[in-house]
Amino acid sequence: MSEHYLEDYQVGQVYGSATARVEGERIKSFAAEFDPQPFHLGEVGAAGTVFGRLAASGWHTAALTMRLLVEGRLRPAGGVIGMGFDELRWPLPVRAGDVLNVQSEILEVRESKSRPDHGVIRVRFTTSNQTGEAVQVATGSLLVRRRPSNLH
Amino acid sequence: MSEHYLEDYQVGQVYGSATARVEGERIKSFAAEFDPQPFHLGEVGAAGTVFGRLAASGWHTAALTMRLLVEGRLRPAGGVIGMGFDELRWPLPVRAGDVLNVQSEILEVRESKSRPDHGVIRVRFTTSNQTGEAVQVATGSLLVRRRPSNLH
Repeated sequence: MSEHYLEDYQVGQVYGSATARVEGERIKSFAAEFDPQPFHLGEVGAAGTVFGRLAASGWHTAALTMRLLVEGRLRPAGGVIGMGFDELRWPLPVRAGDVLNVQSEILEVRESKSRPDHGVIRVRFTTSNQTGEAVQVATGSLLVRRRPSNLH
Repeated sequence: MSEHYLEDYQVGQVYGSATARVEGERIKSFAAEFDPQPFHLGEVGAAGTVFGRLAASGWHTAALTMRLLVEGRLRPAGGVIGMGFDELRWPLPVRAGDVLNVQSEILEVRESKSRPDHGVIRVRFTTSNQTGEAVQVATGSLLVRRRPSNLH
């Protein structure tokens, strides 16, 4: 699968991804290192919290989303380089055994003023579970190379 | 250190954290699982990219920031439960050996309409390295319990 240059993207395009299964043991070990709170560390601690039962850290979901993006069909030339996000939220918890995928919708395509050999695409990344419910929604901007033959 | 209820937060307060050292080997292993791109996987692959040399995945920085928050002085009652972010950016790369800390500045304190026993604080989280440069800036909202004695 070839890389995409800035010129290949158009507003409204939607790129899919493969899927990633979220293992309960990895939910707990990720939390132990990065988000050590009862509702992410085990089933017992999660009972009685706002999550009710074991839920993945939002940062675990965000990190898994990144892997799906890197391996997915968006394929920006130069890599998936996030400049920043202006929205990141988790509408529903991610549970052990969930199978996630990401859809990337192109919202905006523009040249970069500071880097004439690059441009910026603004993208809405929607991470969904196996029943099609959105578990993470993020809108961000990626740095993308311009097609070399278009540079002068 | 005791927990803070909604009523304990005031706009303008700033809460600090301990520090976390970012190890080069962990930068690479985190990237291998979640962000497998040359500039995060090793020094050789990073040369010639926009990062120039090995840089941590932004999601690694975000996850480490979360641990500093969970263990830091903000201490919201019920846990650090992010409802979402309306800004997340990485002004500078995180390098192997960097030592990070997080400052949390309270921007807004309000009651929750949907959950009368909770409220929401809007917070700017600034993650800085050992020379005081910001490597991540995030603005988000956390769910916080109201003081039980204030509920009727």
